Amino acid sequence: MWLLNAPPRDLLDKKHGFKLTDDWLARAQKGSVRFNSGGSGGFVSADGLIVTNHHIAADALAKLSTKDKDYLRTGFYAPTRKQELKCPDLELNVLEEIVDVTDKVTAAVKPEMGPAEANAARRAILSKIEKESTDKTKLRSDVVTLYQGGAYHLYRYKKYTDVRLVFAPEQEIAFFGGDTDNFEYPRFNLDVAFFRAYEGGKPVKPRHFFKWSATGPQANDLVFVTGHPGTTNRLDTLAKLEHRRDVTLPYVLNRLRAMEALLLQFGAQGPEQARMAAKDLHRVANARKAFMGQYQGLLSPAILARKAEEEKELKKKVGASPELKKAAGEAWSRIAKTEKAWAGFERQYYLLERGDAFDGELYSIARHLVRLAAEKPKDNSERLREYRQSNLESLELRLFSPAPIYLELERARLAGALSFFAEQMGGRHPLVTKALAGKAPADRATELVNGTKLRDVAERRRLAAGGAKAIAASEDPFIVLARSLDGEARALRKRFEEEVEEPERQAMGQIATARFKLLGASVAPDATFTLRLAFGVVKGYAVDGVELPYTTTFGGAFERAEKQGHREPFVLPTRWRDGKGKLDLKTPCNFVSTADTIGGNSGSPVLNRAGELVGVNFDRNRHGLVRNFVYTDVQARHVAVHSRGVLAALRALYEADALVKELTASSGS
Amino acid sequence: MWLLNAPPRDLLDKKHGFKLTDDWLARAQKGSVRFNSGGSGGFVSADGLIVTNHHIAADALAKLSTKDKDYLRTGFYAPTRKQELKCPDLELNVLEEIVDVTDKVTAAVKPEMGPAEANAARRAILSKIEKESTDKTKLRSDVVTLYQGGAYHLYRYKKYTDVRLVFAPEQEIAFFGGDTDNFEYPRFNLDVAFFRAYEGGKPVKPRHFFKWSATGPQANDLVFVTGHPGTTNRLDTLAKLEHRRDVTLPYVLNRLRAMEALLLQFGAQGPEQARMAAKDLHRVANARKAFMGQYQGLLSPAILARKAEEEKELKKKVGASPELKKAAGEAWSRIAKTEKAWAGFERQYYLLERGDAFDGELYSIARHLVRLAAEKPKDNSERLREYRQSNLESLELRLFSPAPIYLELERARLAGALSFFAEQMGGRHPLVTKALAGKAPADRATELVNGTKLRDVAERRRLAAGGAKAIAASEDPFIVLARSLDGEARALRKRFEEEVEEPERQAMGQIATARFKLLGASVAPDATFTLRLAFGVVKGYAVDGVELPYTTTFGGAFERAEKQGHREPFVLPTRWRDGKGKLDLKTPCNFVSTADTIGGNSGSPVLNRAGELVGVNFDRNRHGLVRNFVYTDVQARHVAVHSRGVLAALRALYEADALVKELTASSGS
Repeated sequence: MWLLNAPPRDLLDKKHGFKLTDDWLARAQKGSVRFNSGGSGGFVSADGLIVTNHHIAADALAKLSTKDKDYLRTGFYAPTRKQELKCPDLELNVLEEIVDVTDKVTAAVKPEMGPAEANAARRAILSKIEKESTDKTKLRSDVVTLYQGGAYHLYRYKKYTDVRLVFAPEQEIAFFGGDTDNFEYPRFNLDVAFFRAYEGGKPVKPRHFFKWSATGPQANDLVFVTGHPGTTNRLDTLAKLEHRRDVTLPYVLNRLRAMEALLLQFGAQGPEQARMAAKDLHRVANARKAFMGQYQGLLSPAILARKAEEEKELKKKVGASPELKKAAGEAWSRIAKTEKAWAGFERQYYLLERGDAFDGELYSIARHLVRLAAEKPKDNSERLREYRQSNLESLELRLFSPAPIYLELERARLAGALSFFAEQMGGRHPLVTKALAGKAPADRATELVNGTKLRDVAERRRLAAGGAKAIAASEDPFIVLARSLDGEARALRKRFEEEVEEPERQAMGQIATARFKLLGASVAPDATFTLRLAFGVVKGYAVDGVELPYTTTFGGAFERAEKQGHREPFVLPTRWRDGKGKLDLKTPCNFVSTADTIGGNSGSPVLNRAGELVGVNFDRNRHGLVRNFVYTDVQARHVAVHSRGVLAALRALYEADALVKELTASSGS
Repeated sequence: MWLLNAPPRDLLDKKHGFKLTDDWLARAQKGSVRFNSGGSGGFVSADGLIVTNHHIAADALAKLSTKDKDYLRTGFYAPTRKQELKCPDLELNVLEEIVDVTDKVTAAVKPEMGPAEANAARRAILSKIEKESTDKTKLRSDVVTLYQGGAYHLYRYKKYTDVRLVFAPEQEIAFFGGDTDNFEYPRFNLDVAFFRAYEGGKPVKPRHFFKWSATGPQANDLVFVTGHPGTTNRLDTLAKLEHRRDVTLPYVLNRLRAMEALLLQFGAQGPEQARMAAKDLHRVANARKAFMGQYQGLLSPAILARKAEEEKELKKKVGASPELKKAAGEAWSRIAKTEKAWAGFERQYYLLERGDAFDGELYSIARHLVRLAAEKPKDNSERLREYRQSNLESLELRLFSPAPIYLELERARLAGALSFFAEQMGGRHPLVTKALAGKAPADRATELVNGTKLRDVAERRRLAAGGAKAIAASEDPFIVLARSLDGEARALRKRFEEEVEEPERQAMGQIATARFKLLGASVAPDATFTLRLAFGVVKGYAVDGVELPYTTTFGGAFERAEKQGHREPFVLPTRWRDGKGKLDLKTPCNFVSTADTIGGNSGSPVLNRAGELVGVNFDRNRHGLVRNFVYTDVQARHVAVHSRGVLAALRALYEADALVKELTASSGS
């Protein structure tokens, strides 16, 4: 997961005889797209066409759907521009430039400052750098913390907020095999969707886009993945990993299982409830499986033993140099101490400050409105990070989104979350009592959801425009709730920032600096949902002595459906069953490579040496779930949709002539 | 939930003008059957025919099924005795006699004894009473602790272990609506199954059985439920209820959700895996819903406020009498103190001693073998309760059961449980480390399951026969595991018995005695999975202004299937869809009454004034979930299959002529 401004040129040359040129790199960078809803994608035509995964498009598909038109389930195709559907709140980002601002940030935080002062100083300098950049370039500007505090880079993005849906297949083929096959291989998923970016009402003409390869990859091909891996923990200290294993993940898994059970039960009530819950259910089940994979990785002695060994080695080297010892010798024990403190209020932080106790759209809206009113009047440098000037536009896009909010689902999610809050804190805890206001969770959720007007975008705008006065005067039950708990939530936020985040950032920065000095920049920073370049080789692998080939075929999908007795989630769409005869069953469907990916990489372009798009990454296998902690390529693989398979399906089954024409007309850039 | 030896004669007479005769009571008692797998039933013919629920028969149905014959799903019917299928390990009990032994037990436990000594003395006297009774009467003899320690009654049962399956419908109609409709109403479930008890190779001729009513109940009928409610907590002190809310249930819910997620994922892998997991999945999902209902009840301020008020009243009255104050004045605070101590090791107890950390059949077998070898040589009075002489036969019936054990499912359950163990205790806890033996959960589970021979009944018998020597010499990985953890598990058991169970039994006994003195025996003891008599009135109820009638019809089932788009679990069996024309759609299907039931009552006969069976209880509605803590009859109802509906379905759809003939030939006793 290499930085685009520190690409592995030597490694690629040495290992694969590939000369990474500036042109190749510029296209990889500017042809790649970040979906701010949580994924990746890439430009694939001169007219702003963008490919991503169906499951990354799911958020937009669900928001565009109604009781009668369920695009998430049944798919969508706009043969003409006019028929494309504008997404209510989708923001795409294209990385234009990276500037190293480490020195500026480091200079602002003086060694003599205490944690509170240091945290304030750091927040101020970050917001200042971002605002100056936005003012100057008009680009979205985010300072990204790399190496958990070892470096700070300013990322400037071109932003697209007029994004329209062009094509999505049926969920049955996009997510064939469902939760069962998620994080598994062999796979048979047409997990793609197409959007088009607009500006000024016209399709964007991107400077760079990827030519769609008609052949796709071959075995042993070198391939690249350009996308936005979300989070990894490879540089975390042993203390942090143990904390993750023993404190964070047990909580996270319990919560995800509670949410999944609730959403399953909600969706089981009827077809319309199933539609309402589908998007959240997929998100939660996927997270449950990914986090359980992480947890299993941390219970695997091999992984922690390796981590312990690496840490011991590094500490030894640091200890051997008086200069490094002075600068970083105490960092590990300081982190261990910090983690211990964090364990004392982490769950409360998640429940109250992150809002786990009030799961749903409405509370999230209320909280933003309450905080916006308090933060906006402050100087930019003093605001909570998410309300900094340079982020407000993106925040308001979501806050004032006309996307539907289902009251029935909101009631169920909120009741479940309030109940989980009580499970975690005890039924008599003052915060629980305050949140429940003398009612059982279901009654309290009903009271809140039935009494609010926040589903109405105009009401949200009215409250936001009215500022602190409007918020103070509001009797909307969600606003009242968010207001009444804001003091406690902010106190937890402050404790986290000053007692955990800032001390750890400092200590991790010291470790990173020591590592640079000892080992050079040989290690890429952990993932931060920013653009990274990964590379690998297209090849199969063996499980229990069974060789799995690098690619699957359409025929395999039909075989798997047959073997599973055509029961959900192994039911192929009618279009596929009826159209089987029109397909060459030997057409490649999905393939795997050893390239390094993680959640957030969904929808990432997979490129060949020529910079052509040969696939769309959509998953990794279960052996890849430990990649949060270590990169391995023995059995770990990412899984991608094959570019040739996409064309074949679009041609034979979807009669998407215009789309095929646009994809195949592309001459590259 | 009245005791059969203290029936509510006056109440019935006063409220319903019903004179409860000794004959009526004798039939109610001896016609009723306990399913030791966890449910109730009743004799319904002179030839030993027994009715229960399909979901109570599920354990036996699953154990009789194979890959090719899935009786649990597709049903079963034996038109002749010869075709009936013998269940591998089903034990039925019929209550013959109750003897009050409170004085004997109380006399054995001296006031001056410390908790350890008192616990040993109590254990000894209970085992002695039971053994003497078994030796004398040849009947299964259990001393039941009533009022949490306020009274001790000896229950003598006739035991049947040759039980054969006669009839079960398809699961699709028995459990129509699945988890979604579970604990809901209106319902449309043919949740019945029939067995026949044999003795000496011949059908049992029971002295008492219930005549099958061809008409069933009418609105406002007085009805009785005779069955075996499992557990209620109505007499628990406030401290115990709060402990349940804040300590026990959060753990239980977390565990059930983890198990349910695991079983769902296991079953989703393929039709055969779905079959293997079906029984456990139903059990776990049902428990999750029931416990969640309990939890919601305990979060409902009305319920705990009422409990607090009642407790305050009782304490006041106790305080007002010097004699009672001396005897019981400290009881509440002692219980509160005890609960606090319990919170310190309760989870460890569940994980290690109850075996939550090693979920599955194989570990349970290994643990019993290890403990049997240690306990059998001891004097009967000193053994752990479950190994007392009078219980050995029942224990060995299950231990040496030839019922299938699915290694694939065992691996998955064990891996999940080991992982949950780590979640609860931390990955570095010495017990977790010991259990995992240096491996990740899945690898450890594979090692254990692949290495064991305990699936083989002969091997179990060999180890049991070999006693302590064979156990000590065994290298079976499950035996080694159970052996290596037995010290820690026993230590937890000892702490529980001496620091929690015994002190609470004493304190609860004091409270119960005080309550008897102040209020008489006006309150029935909490449920103990022993025979109880409940009564109520057949009537509908209103929810949010909508009146729900007391009965549903077959037609309603077809309507609900239609409305749900015939998606699972709302798919009616082919037999029903094809046979719709043969049914009178107005035939009553299910009905509700206000009678008091709880889990364990499943399969209970519902009787009319004449002692005829008018229904088979199978569920309660969600308003009834709080009945663990308080009885209410405003909206709370139990749900039963209508006796007329059963006959109609058997006649029209199942062509079960012999069964219908046997049911309608019955003249009662």
